Formats: sequence, structure tokens, C-alpha cells
Amino acid sequence: MSLTKLENYAEGKWVSSAAEGETLYNAVTGDAIYTAGSQGLDFGAMMQYARKVGGPALRKLTFQQRGLMLKALAMHLLERKEYFYTISAYTGATRADSWVDIEGGIGNLFTYASLRRQFPDERFYVDGDAAKLSKNNTFIGHHIMVPREGVAIHINAFNFPVWGMLEKIAVNLLAGVPAIVKPATLTSYLTEVVFREIIRSGILPEGSLQLICGSARGILDNIETQDVVTFTGSASTGRMLKSHPRILSEAVPFNMEADSLNCCILGTDVQPGMPEFDIFIKEVVREITTKAGQKCTAIRRIIVPADRVEDVQIALGKRLQTNVMGDPSIKEVRMGPLAGISQRNEVREKVQQLARTQSIVIGNPDNFEVLGADKEKGAFLPPLIFLNTDPFTNTDCHNIEAFGPVSTIIPYDTTDDAITLARMGMGSLVCSVVTADDDIAREIVLGAASMHGRILVLNNDCAKESTGHGSPMPLLVHGGPGRAGGGEEMGGKRGVMHYLQRTAIQGSPTTIGRITNVYQQGGKQHETDVHPFKKHFEDLQIGETLTTAKHTVSETDITNFANVSGDNFYAHMDATSLEGTIFTGRVAHGYFVLSKAAGLFVDAKKGPVLLNYGIDECRFTKPVYPGMTIGVRLTVKEKIAQEKKTPEDIAKGIVKWLVDVYDETGETVAIATILTMVKMKDQG
Amino acid sequence: MSLTKLENYAEGKWVSSAAEGETLYNAVTGDAIYTAGSQGLDFGAMMQYARKVGGPALRKLTFQQRGLMLKALAMHLLERKEYFYTISAYTGATRADSWVDIEGGIGNLFTYASLRRQFPDERFYVDGDAAKLSKNNTFIGHHIMVPREGVAIHINAFNFPVWGMLEKIAVNLLAGVPAIVKPATLTSYLTEVVFREIIRSGILPEGSLQLICGSARGILDNIETQDVVTFTGSASTGRMLKSHPRILSEAVPFNMEADSLNCCILGTDVQPGMPEFDIFIKEVVREITTKAGQKCTAIRRIIVPADRVEDVQIALGKRLQTNVMGDPSIKEVRMGPLAGISQRNEVREKVQQLARTQSIVIGNPDNFEVLGADKEKGAFLPPLIFLNTDPFTNTDCHNIEAFGPVSTIIPYDTTDDAITLARMGMGSLVCSVVTADDDIAREIVLGAASMHGRILVLNNDCAKESTGHGSPMPLLVHGGPGRAGGGEEMGGKRGVMHYLQRTAIQGSPTTIGRITNVYQQGGKQHETDVHPFKKHFEDLQIGETLTTAKHTVSETDITNFANVSGDNFYAHMDATSLEGTIFTGRVAHGYFVLSKAAGLFVDAKKGPVLLNYGIDECRFTKPVYPGMTIGVRLTVKEKIAQEKKTPEDIAKGIVKWLVDVYDETGETVAIATILTMVKMKDQG
Repeated sequence: MSLTKLENYAEGKWVSSAAEGETLYNAVTGDAIYTAGSQGLDFGAMMQYARKVGGPALRKLTFQQRGLMLKALAMHLLERKEYFYTISAYTGATRADSWVDIEGGIGNLFTYASLRRQFPDERFYVDGDAAKLSKNNTFIGHHIMVPREGVAIHINAFNFPVWGMLEKIAVNLLAGVPAIVKPATLTSYLTEVVFREIIRSGILPEGSLQLICGSARGILDNIETQDVVTFTGSASTGRMLKSHPRILSEAVPFNMEADSLNCCILGTDVQPGMPEFDIFIKEVVREITTKAGQKCTAIRRIIVPADRVEDVQIALGKRLQTNVMGDPSIKEVRMGPLAGISQRNEVREKVQQLARTQSIVIGNPDNFEVLGADKEKGAFLPPLIFLNTDPFTNTDCHNIEAFGPVSTIIPYDTTDDAITLARMGMGSLVCSVVTADDDIAREIVLGAASMHGRILVLNNDCAKESTGHGSPMPLLVHGGPGRAGGGEEMGGKRGVMHYLQRTAIQGSPTTIGRITNVYQQGGKQHETDVHPFKKHFEDLQIGETLTTAKHTVSETDITNFANVSGDNFYAHMDATSLEGTIFTGRVAHGYFVLSKAAGLFVDAKKGPVLLNYGIDECRFTKPVYPGMTIGVRLTVKEKIAQEKKTPEDIAKGIVKWLVDVYDETGETVAIATILTMVKMKDQG
Repeated sequence: MSLTKLENYAEGKWVSSAAEGETLYNAVTGDAIYTAGSQGLDFGAMMQYARKVGGPALRKLTFQQRGLMLKALAMHLLERKEYFYTISAYTGATRADSWVDIEGGIGNLFTYASLRRQFPDERFYVDGDAAKLSKNNTFIGHHIMVPREGVAIHINAFNFPVWGMLEKIAVNLLAGVPAIVKPATLTSYLTEVVFREIIRSGILPEGSLQLICGSARGILDNIETQDVVTFTGSASTGRMLKSHPRILSEAVPFNMEADSLNCCILGTDVQPGMPEFDIFIKEVVREITTKAGQKCTAIRRIIVPADRVEDVQIALGKRLQTNVMGDPSIKEVRMGPLAGISQRNEVREKVQQLARTQSIVIGNPDNFEVLGADKEKGAFLPPLIFLNTDPFTNTDCHNIEAFGPVSTIIPYDTTDDAITLARMGMGSLVCSVVTADDDIAREIVLGAASMHGRILVLNNDCAKESTGHGSPMPLLVHGGPGRAGGGEEMGGKRGVMHYLQRTAIQGSPTTIGRITNVYQQGGKQHETDVHPFKKHFEDLQIGETLTTAKHTVSETDITNFANVSGDNFYAHMDATSLEGTIFTGRVAHGYFVLSKAAGLFVDAKKGPVLLNYGIDECRFTKPVYPGMTIGVRLTVKEKIAQEKKTPEDIAKGIVKWLVDVYDETGETVAIATILTMVKMKDQG
């Protein structure tokens, strides 16, 4: 039987390798199933194609449009998931393992699609607050972030052929940057079928994505200044790539996610019988067996109070006994083989290294049962638990990562010791703490944080809904310091920033307002011709201002406001109480000033303004006393068009207004941003 | 005469070099003045000392305390500035040049001192918003940032011996990380005198700072995972350091600020006679002559519309004629020598390289006047302006950085061409645009941003208060992509993040609240025993909640509120107007709901709550109609102790409260964070 030849997707076309390529095997049966090669591909031309075709097309879209594109893509892939599950089985994955990879990956697309709402409907992002740089406020600073005009090269690991691709492209696509995906060849057949569906969907602009199933050796020779490289894999390969002369000379961001000896700590408070004890055992077993332990986030170190080592060992042993290993297509099977024979050999070697300084207390690498498969042809290895009784001296368990179902129990005495042991991983992706005591949780988190990218605290309140020790979440950063590579992926909006250039901009508030499309305080205000509440979304201009009539505040106002609100706070109501306060007399309620401002600026008649739905950053900057006269400048600050959820929806957008309430001396007494929903003219 | 031997500050002591060291010269007279050496220093021990002594001491302080420490340090140095000016003159700096270095550097300390207010009064920073990770909200995510438990190694350039040190240590000290400062040996005598004052002040904890005046070769051999390296200097040295095996194996953040061929673009709209034309000429001349052009941010490329090249050339020539060069101690002198003969030789060599493809149109490197100094013994070089008439083909001007008073005029036709030319610097620290047309400004900024770290737009509105093309500002990022090194320094809070590890944390809202000391929605609320307005700052507990009495909203409420506020918006007042709106009847004003909430939760009697000074993130989530009944849960969300500005001030703190207004079904109708100032019990 001739093997299926995987294809590469280069410069908008599916291309076969010019030569034979590497043979890929079914991890369960050991059968050869595919070949993968990249001979004949011109990497330089592919990168140039991405920069010249994909980049400009993506940059033409706003964050909103790119987000909607991701949503459509996620839905398209979700409809075809069952096919992906079939192929995923060849990697040795159980249905549960594949779920993490396939549906977890698609979930990432959905999450990044939703993140569009945290970006403006623009081609750039405005970062942080404006900086005052001058006394009279004629000169200010700000930051914008624009897409890098290069290509993202994603070099991925074998263990998550789908998630590994999708978690990264979700981010670069939302950012407006094209990518070339290089999955690990070992499991690239799964990446390829998902990639085919992406291309077939026709949802992404031409040039957005390319794929290299075979070797990508030499690709970095073509790197340029505006590109970005991400790498997931072994530290040794990562370091070699990171020090590539072009990466250095072009100062290209290189995001690395490498080795990690993650730990799970059982709190000193947790005794057998407590729900947290069972939570701990369950979590550890899950992390050892899911994907047969082939997760960069898997628990490699089980850190437990010394006097509970025996309890933990017994409980783990019991649980692991029920862990049926074998062909994942069989219902009873809980754990499949490793992804290939080469992987198994590597893990066996690491197990031998670990065995020099510590002993296996659960499992036997040479004697195990396999259901429905040949245990030599398939890449099977049973869960193996070591015990290291001297973890401060015998430090192999903190340094040697066996990338399979292998972990070490490590005893500790004090919480301080537990923190020290956790830190001995010298930089990990994740640490978890199981404790019912939030003070212990706080101590461990603050003590271990600088060596970890993520720390999970489990207790009985959250365990049921917990997403687990091993799962990076799209809204949280994934990556860790030191040994883990020092990288940072995802993290919600943060991830997108890695593909954008942050640029400080300086100029007059009017200029900065024009560039950012957000009104900046001190910028020119142009008095509106018609009341702005009479204008539709499209007609409102940034900087357009209504200067209202004025109102002299009276004691009656204060009394009436106290009556209607019920707020009789002494500073408003009791003229005899003000000694020792900052107030020189009965002061108007802040909420009165804000409400009165609305009374001054609102146009009562039905018009395009649909509703007022919030207030941001309101500050009462000066007390208002009876006899003072207030007026309002209402300025259009920012406009964000809204998507229609259904075709019948009213077309509308958010308008943010700067409300500046000032007194008879011209000084501001209150300032706020208010949020309204405004109808569009065009209801098409 | 024997030369003064500069000292190093290592492990808490001033240490002389064991050997002779390098001779340093007065740039004006050419006289030998100091020697600098580092022989005998144990870099590994210094770094360990910083990690074991300085780091723990700094991490014991909160951001507030570290900020106050910076403020004290800034004041201490400012009092001694005149002495620094005397020494600075040896570098060839004029008084104006020294001002940028000395007072600019001290200004950075002040700015970073003030930034403490943007951090919590804690040893960690809480980054961004909590992430919802579960349906029932029993499991959430968040991010904290803690100081890296290592040492910052700052390798600095010769051109800003004071600013270069202070702009960096301001940031690492606020972050809670100790540093070792390695100034360029050439001008290290100025760094050393300022450093002496820092140590003499006794303001910083032991171990916070160390200094190496001589060579630091080999220091990176001692780098560990938690350290940070910053480098300012030439790209070739930077790349060598960045690829150091330990930097790679330990995944140490390496921030580089290297070469940069910055440009200034004259907009197509600007004609001679317009104020912007003069602004352009003035800015270019200033950037060429300040520090004799020895600034990484200096203008190297003067990009002007082709038909205005002659006007620009004439105007520049005229202005530069009045630029008296000589001994900076003479009043008339506007420009001093370069920092040393070696520097002059290097610049001359680059000038020769540039002259291969373009011609000098202003200035002569071999024929110039010098006032009050020997032009051969001092490192003098006059301003030199090239003209490149074919800048798309002869690209040396975009690639060769002559680090002195050297720049090239480059003609362009269209704004698009100007953007392309600006981008041909392949990554620059700064670009400036002089235009009176904000649309041109916008086009250039968005087109050039991905290749620039900062873009300044100058026009007649802002030029007077502008801080200038060449000045990095502490609140804005400094650094650029590509050739500029890909680094990012300062940028306000952003800079501090480079010395912190960001860690995602996951758990129940109660646990996350306990870790962050900020109440998280969904976290346990404990009903208060006494009304919280009766409690002092110290007695209020995060999560403490007041559940108020309730109020049934009536039409009378709406009418009364409309009367007192004057807000007669149709949706509140006109029952016949609601067709086509989302409202099913007259709806209560959002501001009424908020005001009524205050009426429900306020304790009227005089007590520790001093005032209500603002509202954040208020959202009206559900319409409130007459007949609905609302109640409030008021929860202590966050507490921030305030510093006293004078000893007589009342001791107080900010308390942020979560206001949750809910209806008879338990659904939230409005949610907001309100800000109050609360007295402390302890008025000591």
C-alpha cells in the first residue's frame, strides 16, 4: 500500500514535496500511514508572499472584522470536528485527549473572536492613557499599536497538532499579521487536515496562512525586522533558533515555550478525608494520564507534606490501577500510547536517568498491560511514579523532564520548603496548590510567582468548575520564565500585543485626537450646530461639543435632591457638622451635580440617542456650594459601531461623551465619561 | 601629576581596581584626567550579593515606599547638581547638554516616584481585569506581577552618563529589583560622582545598587534565570551579548537599544513663511548640535518635499553659521567637542563612507573654527549636512550612523514616498513630522508606526511646549524595532513590568480576592456588624458587605427626579413615546437608581467617611420601572492608604466599594465602583 503524501500549502497553493519525505506512523498500531516532506519549497518566497499578499489584506480589516472572521472560522471547523477526531486517534489520543486538542483549539478561536470587543473598530489599538507632557496642555503623549508588517513563523510541538496551531493563529490573525505554520512533522497529518478545512472555508484573505508539514530547516535565514517567531518544543532546539544570526541582527521577537517541570503542592492543612485531598489525587492522576503525560503543563513533581507521603502514594496507586491503557478506540481505555516509538525511547531514557537518584514506587516500565493493541508495536508506556526522599540534594527530579506519564513524589516539611522546592524547577509553566486555607494559598502564590507563568489554587469551592492544572486558557498568559523559555502566549489582549508595534505619539491634543479618533482633553472643541442628541451616529464628529445653559445651585436643590434620593449625609444636610471637614458649608451631592449636568445637556425629545448605559471615570474635583453656577461642555469623545446580532436589530453604535461640569470661574467641578447607544441613519 | 583613580562600588564597599586601568581624557583639552579599572572585582559575588542582600531588602518595601525612596533620592541629587555640571563639562557638554543629562535624569526619578500612585500599596501589582472562566463564577482567573528575584545588569552608553543610569535604575528600583550599573568607561567619571552621592545619601537599602567603572567583561557568565539585562550601545556589541550562552539558556530578558537612523519629515503642506517651516529648521538644527549630535535619537535623515530642498538647505546653512563651536565653558559656545578623540575618528570614518554616495552641502570636516580651545587636542567636529538626491538607490544614508553632528537631506515627492523613506531606516527610535495638516500627520504616523518606537508631530499649536524630537520621556516608551534593537524602556508603568514576572492565577473568587487584596465579584461577602460608614479605614475588611433596606420605585420618584435634575428625557417622562424603544414603559433615570442606591447605603451621621469623590465603571444593566423594588449590596472592594502631604494632614485612605443594585428578582439593575476617602483611627 502506497502511503498518503501530506501536502504543504505555499503561496496560495497545495504543493507536494519534490522528494519522498519522512514516514509517519500510527502510534497505536505502529503502521506507516503518511509521508511528509517539504523539498522544493522556497521558504523565502513564501515569507515574501505572506508579507506582500497576506499582510496588506489583513491590515485592511479592522479588529472587529478580523474577530468576526475568526468566529466564522471557528464555526466552520466545529461542524467538521468528527473527522478531525478520526485522524487524531492515530496520534494515540483518547477521545478526551482529542477534545482538548480539537475543541480546545477551536474554543481559542471563539475566545479571540470575542476579544474584538476589547479593541476599537480601527486598524490600530490605542494603548493606555494619554500622558500630560506640558504645563498648558498644548503638548501630550499617547501610545498606539499597529500590526507588524511581517509574518509570524510558528514552530510547533507534536503533542497538540490542532490546538498548537489554532491558539497561535487566533492571536496573529486578530492582530492583522499573516503566519506560516510549521507543525512538528511527527503528527503533522492531523494539522494538515484541519488546515485544509481552513483553506477550503475561504474565510481568510489570500496569503493569511501557509503550512509546512516537512522540515523547515533554513526558514529563519529569510527573517526580516517586522517578522515574529514563536517556538514550542525542546529548550535545546529553541536556544539554537533564538540565537540565529538573522533573529539577532533583525531584533525579531522570539517567543519560546520550552521545558517545564511543573509541580502540584498539597497544602499542610489538607488531611486525608478532606475533599481537598481527593481533589489533589484526582488532579495529579489526570495530569499524569491525559495525553499519556505528553503535555508541557503536566505535573512532574508532586510536592506533599512529609507525613502524608504514604497516604498520597496509596491513593495514587489505587486510582492509577483503574487507568486502563490501550487502543483509544476501545471504550474502557483511559490512556493511549505515546505519539511514537521515538518518543517512547526518549522517555525511557529519561526514566533511567531519574532512576539513578530516586526509585519508582508505582508502575513498572517493563511490565504492564495493554488493551486491544500490541504493546511493542504501539508506543505504550504505563504511568510511573517516583519517590525522592531527599529532594534538596538529589535534584534530578527538578531538572530532568520525562515527557510522558512520569512524575515524582517529593516530601516537604514547612510551607517555606514547599515554595523553595517549587522554585527549584527554575522556571515553570504552571504550579498548582491544593489547600482549603486561603492564607496558605496566598503565601505559596506570592512566594512562587516569580518562577511561574501560572498558579492554580484548588479547593472545594472551585474544583468542580476548575479548568484544571494542565489547561492553558486563552484569557490567561501561557508561558513561564527561565527553563520554560521566558515566553508569553495568549493572555487575552496581551497576546495580540506581541504582534503589534507599540509607538509613542506626541503632539497637540487636537493632533493626537485626530490620529487616535478619540477626543483628547485640551483638544479643539467645535460647537455643535444642532443639539447632538438630535444627530445620528454617523453625523456625530469627534470633538463636537455642546455648551449648555447654566444653573445656579441653591439650598433648595440640595434639599430636594436629598428628598428624592434619601441621601441625607451630614455634609449635605447639617450645617453645624462641618468642623474638621474639608467643606466650608453645606455641599451639593456629587450625584446631584452629575444628575443636574444631565438635566442641562439632555435633549428631551425622542431622537437618535437610545439610552444612557453607563458612566466611566467620574471624579468630583471641587465642592459645589449653594450660590455657585454650573454649566456643562458635552463633547463627543469616541464612537464604536456595533454589530447587529440579528438582521432585525436596529443599526447603532456606542458614543462616549466627555462631560465637563464647570463653575462660574471656569474651573471643573466634575468630569466624567458617559456611555450612550445612538441609532444610525443607515438602517440597511 | 598622578591621575585620580575611579572606584567601583561592589558588595557595599568602594573598591579600587587592582591594576592600573584605562586612562580617561578631558574632551575639550585632551588632558588625561582619570583612570578606570575593575581588576580584582568578583562579578559573580557582586551579583550574588545583589540577589541575596539588595533584592530581599527592596522586595520588603511596597511600591509606595519605593516611590517615596526615589523621590527622596531625586531631591538629594538635585541639591548637588552644580557639582555634577562641573564634572560634566569634561565630557564636552555645554550647560544645555548637561541639563538634559543631569536634570533630565533626576526628572526621571521624580516621574517614577510619582508613578507609585498607579501601583497598589503592595509588594505586587494586579494586572488587568479578572477573567471569567466558569459558568457559575466559582472559578476565575487573574494576573499578578511580582518582582523578579534577580539583579538588573545595566550596560550603558557613553553619551548620557547620568541620565543613562538614572532612567534605568528609577524603573528597576520602583519594581523592587537591585541593579549593577556598568557605564561606558569613556565618561564613567561623571557616573561615578553621581553614584557616590546616591550611596552617600543612605536612602537606598544596602545592596540595591553597585557600580563597575572599568571593564565588565565576563559578567554575563554569572547570569541566572531571574536576572534582567539592559544594553544601550552599538548593535554589534549588543548582538554579541544577547547571544551569550547564559542569556539563552536562562531565558533572561535582554533589552537592547542600539543603532537608529531617525528622521524628521517636513509635510507637503509646509511652505517657507509658515511657522511650521521655522519650527522644522529649528528642530533639525537643535538635534544636530545638541550633544554634538551624539544622541541615539538625533535626526540623521531630513526628509523634505523635493521642491523645498533648496529652501531647507539655505535655512539650515544660515542657522548653523551662528552655531559657535568651542570650549563649552565660554558663554557664546553653542556646541562642544565630541566625547573623545576615538569618537571623532569613528565619526570621521563614517562621514567618509557616506561621502561615497552623497555630497556634503553644509560644513567641512577639515576646515572649521573653534572658540577657546585647541581644535586638534579637543575632539571637535563641525556640523555636516549631506544631500542625497537619489535616496531610493543610494541607501547609505539609511544604513550608516555617524554618531556626531552629521545628517542627510533627502528629497521626496509624495507622502507615500516620505513614509517609505522613513521606513528604510529599518527600525528607528523616533521619527518626527512637521505639518499643520492633521490628516497628513495621521497618514504618516499610521504608515510609519510599525518601524518606529516614537513619532512626534510638531505644529504651531504645540511647538512651544514640545519636549522635542530628541528627548525620550519617562511616561512614553523609549526604544524601537529592528535596527534600533527591538527594546522598550520606560513608558511609565510599562517599564516597571519588564522587571516583574506576570503570573496568571486561578481559583475561587474568594481565594483570588484574598491573594490580590481586591474583592472579586462572586467572592464570599460577610455581612458587616456595624454600618461600614461608622468604621475607620483600618477596620474595614475586604469583602465586608452592607445589605441595605429596599425601596419600591414609583412614578413619583421619576417625576421628582426629573424636577430636581431637569432631565426630562422622553423615555422617563413621556409614556406615549416608547414605541420602537427597548423600554416597555416609563423608565427610571439611571442617575436616579444610582442616587437612590446612595440614599439606601449612606449613613447620614458624621463618621470616618470623609467624602465621595468619584465613580468608576458604572453600568445600568436592566431598566427599572415603577413598581420594581431595589436594594443594594455595598461591599468593601479595595483599600489604598494615602500618604500625608503635611504632618498636619488627616491620616486617611481611599476605599473603593462595589455597589450592586438589584431588583426583587435578585437580578442586578446597576453596578458601579464608588470611591470614598476614609479617615484612619490612628492619627499618629
